[in-house]
Amino acid sequence: MREKEKNYPWIRKVSPGLTPPSLRDNTADVDRLIKGIKKELNGEEVHVDFSLTGKVSASLKQSGYDVSASIYEEHGDWRLIDIYDAQDNERICGVAIDLGSTTVVLRLIDLETGVAMDETSFHNPQIEIGADILTRIHFATRGEGLLHLQRMLIERLNKEIAALGRKHLVGPSGIVGMSVAGNTTMTHLFLGLNPYGICREPYIPVVNRIGLIPSRELGLDINPGAPVLVSPNVGSYFGGDLIAGILASGIHRQDEVSFLVDVGTNAEVVVGNKEWLMACAGAAGPALEGGVADMGMMAAPGVIDRVVIDPVTREFTIGMIQDAGAHPAQVKRPVGICGSGLIDLVAQLFSAGMIDLRGRFVEEACGNRIVEENGIQQLVVVPPKDSGTGRALTLSQTDLDGLIRSKAAMYTILTTVASTVNIPFAEIGKFYVAGTFGSYIDPRSAITIGMIPDLPLETYVSLGNTSLEGASMALVGSEAREALFRIRDQITYLELNVNQEFMNLFSAAKFIPHTDTSLFPTVAVRE
Amino acid sequence: MREKEKNYPWIRKVSPGLTPPSLRDNTADVDRLIKGIKKELNGEEVHVDFSLTGKVSASLKQSGYDVSASIYEEHGDWRLIDIYDAQDNERICGVAIDLGSTTVVLRLIDLETGVAMDETSFHNPQIEIGADILTRIHFATRGEGLLHLQRMLIERLNKEIAALGRKHLVGPSGIVGMSVAGNTTMTHLFLGLNPYGICREPYIPVVNRIGLIPSRELGLDINPGAPVLVSPNVGSYFGGDLIAGILASGIHRQDEVSFLVDVGTNAEVVVGNKEWLMACAGAAGPALEGGVADMGMMAAPGVIDRVVIDPVTREFTIGMIQDAGAHPAQVKRPVGICGSGLIDLVAQLFSAGMIDLRGRFVEEACGNRIVEENGIQQLVVVPPKDSGTGRALTLSQTDLDGLIRSKAAMYTILTTVASTVNIPFAEIGKFYVAGTFGSYIDPRSAITIGMIPDLPLETYVSLGNTSLEGASMALVGSEAREALFRIRDQITYLELNVNQEFMNLFSAAKFIPHTDTSLFPTVAVRE
Repeated sequence: MREKEKNYPWIRKVSPGLTPPSLRDNTADVDRLIKGIKKELNGEEVHVDFSLTGKVSASLKQSGYDVSASIYEEHGDWRLIDIYDAQDNERICGVAIDLGSTTVVLRLIDLETGVAMDETSFHNPQIEIGADILTRIHFATRGEGLLHLQRMLIERLNKEIAALGRKHLVGPSGIVGMSVAGNTTMTHLFLGLNPYGICREPYIPVVNRIGLIPSRELGLDINPGAPVLVSPNVGSYFGGDLIAGILASGIHRQDEVSFLVDVGTNAEVVVGNKEWLMACAGAAGPALEGGVADMGMMAAPGVIDRVVIDPVTREFTIGMIQDAGAHPAQVKRPVGICGSGLIDLVAQLFSAGMIDLRGRFVEEACGNRIVEENGIQQLVVVPPKDSGTGRALTLSQTDLDGLIRSKAAMYTILTTVASTVNIPFAEIGKFYVAGTFGSYIDPRSAITIGMIPDLPLETYVSLGNTSLEGASMALVGSEAREALFRIRDQITYLELNVNQEFMNLFSAAKFIPHTDTSLFPTVAVRE
Repeated sequence: MREKEKNYPWIRKVSPGLTPPSLRDNTADVDRLIKGIKKELNGEEVHVDFSLTGKVSASLKQSGYDVSASIYEEHGDWRLIDIYDAQDNERICGVAIDLGSTTVVLRLIDLETGVAMDETSFHNPQIEIGADILTRIHFATRGEGLLHLQRMLIERLNKEIAALGRKHLVGPSGIVGMSVAGNTTMTHLFLGLNPYGICREPYIPVVNRIGLIPSRELGLDINPGAPVLVSPNVGSYFGGDLIAGILASGIHRQDEVSFLVDVGTNAEVVVGNKEWLMACAGAAGPALEGGVADMGMMAAPGVIDRVVIDPVTREFTIGMIQDAGAHPAQVKRPVGICGSGLIDLVAQLFSAGMIDLRGRFVEEACGNRIVEENGIQQLVVVPPKDSGTGRALTLSQTDLDGLIRSKAAMYTILTTVASTVNIPFAEIGKFYVAGTFGSYIDPRSAITIGMIPDLPLETYVSLGNTSLEGASMALVGSEAREALFRIRDQITYLELNVNQEFMNLFSAAKFIPHTDTSLFPTVAVRE
């Protein structure tokens, strides 16, 4: 076979320019199309799935043999997706999906240009069954539970894809490819595969590397021949969303060693470069129970995402997420605080001397902002008169303790990973922060509370939704798709060993910024 | 990829001997199976179709990871058909089918040994719609006609396969492969493809080369993942049955140039050797209308297949097809005459001087065997008292004229083909005669009437059902399967040009044995 170009669109449209048959050239219809496309592809192998045989012949006859075709490549051979009357100039599009357990994000992509056309997001409808993954796994193993979970997701996807399509005048058959990135459980539920083994020793998924699946086998209302690419899992606790994330970050192509941290329901850490990759993720034992999840509130209009406290007057300036393009008169009052706002708040409280290094409220500094409810101290962030809910927005000692456990867990994991690979933090090239949540975090604040290492701010790069970005890249280019599977195969998975040493590190990290303040030279600590 | 052996079973069973998962080896189920089979195959690529993903995982868990698997190879990669508990020692079998428009023959084959286990045959149920192909094509293009024709065939196949399976204790899931050889129309009807283009200028089938089809897409009650191999067509008038026939004859592997003639509803002729192949088949215009079809009566118990006439006494000795193992007392009386019997009869009549070289009854030689009905002369072959029907079995002048037209057509085609490729008959290595009908023909009689060239009798080799044999070979070995497609691609199709020269040759061949008796030196011609 001819050497393929390194990077090419693996889903594409071809116009083979067929000559109609005659007594002198009585090649059969399907064979004629295959021959035409093969010529267009400089001799690469082309197959037509049996289910399309009848359609091909009918379409050739109807169009007078003036057709174009959508095709995709797998294992070096091309396969027909669909055939069109060339005069119709049918557009070919694809959908990339970040299949989050909480939020699902869809991106509509023009596959001829690779350009993103639109994006939409919605709550995963499976939340109705259970907000957490374990509840869904248990539900899936009972009766028709698995089918039900799969259907509610697929039906919602169909609805959202149809809506996106209508907006851009793309019919279901115009969607000729899909790329999905989700964690291992979400991937199993999307595919209707039993997730039982994922959460039980020895934690065995049904499948990690999945070949392209024709969309019709999943009940998706897109072109029935469209290939569905599923980002591969490393194992039960390291899923395709993270592999797609690594792809999007590009750390697997760089010389220098970089960190990639995905701060979502769990904290997932990847470190490496173009030669090696090590990953560490998920449920790392009782010490991390709850993980960094408490910080993972959804950013939405009316939610506080920035807090500045004047170190002298201790006055609060509150920043809030606004409706895009909302009229100033319609600006909402705050109704809650999201994770990045919380990190800002705690960092500012610490800098203003309102909490101490053990994360306790300093009563004399907090003054009348401190109230007590059910025996637990609360700090009033927004008084009732300024709140959108009519009640005070507060930060309780419990919230604070939770945040500190989370940030200590994060820092301990980072320390452990760095020491395992023997790379001092100072030698890190870039520190990428992924996840919608991660993209809002102010690194300065995260450093102040000792959540992430005290590195020059330019080391930190926020990447946004890397799962969606990686899924999109793999849908559009062959090199990215191959990289997805290469990354999966290359990665070494580090099972966090929650031993005495880990617990010692964790305890030391439960201070603000840390017991060893020399690790955070840029953080001013009030004695 | 490792160089594959030249010939290997492309459907096979493997026992990968998997190690069950553990915390130290948490490869996912499907990935584990793939890895195990890949190792067993020295690193060749292995894929598991998505539809089998769930079953693989369940089966691995149920069997404690002690499984065997049936797999097949296509385009160099292996694909899973099914997975079994290794302790069950499941047998894997396949079915080869000669899909005749009149008769369908099934052969059950043990795929581990390649040995034929049993065979069964039945009338094609589509005869109910129409005995000839054209009627079926017309029926197929009306309403649900195509679906109806396909279903009646598939349902009957399912019934017959089930019966064969029961006899040999092979369940439907134990049939993991199928190989089908039929003419182009029969192939289209089997696959549910519109045959409309086959019989209309410019005679374009839907497809000639068909990839392996999973049996479930055809509604076959065998293992749903079993690959169905369909012998490829050259065009509308040269189908997969003939390609399979060439494969079975082996002429494509020989140094010497041989002829292969399939005498069925049409007369199909192939000539060539390992370097080139030329074929000529089917409807060659008005001269051949009816073709050799009139001779194609079914051989069955009670049908005359041999006739000897004493040249002096002109007494008839009649040979008849008997029920296998029938008691002498139950021997039937003759009810008809089959094609090979007819050839014998006419050859003997000619040798005994009872017909002349123009194929007319010689009244003085025939004596009281000649009767006249509706103004047409009839020769009584079996008088009413000896006949199974109670009426005389006769040969009319019309029958005789038909046979002579047919034999003249056959000889003219052979002459035309030989002269096109510039090979004198005397240089033919072997002259293979295929088809159930062909296998009964006595070459001596066929030479006597001038149907086939006057060559040494050892030149003629009867091959029996070459379609079935070719389909079986291609099901069992990779080399034969590849050869099937190579033969198809190699073959040059000769469209018979029914011009004045052809008609002249045809007229000359309408004599017994021929106008030019020097072409038949071994045939004694009474002056």
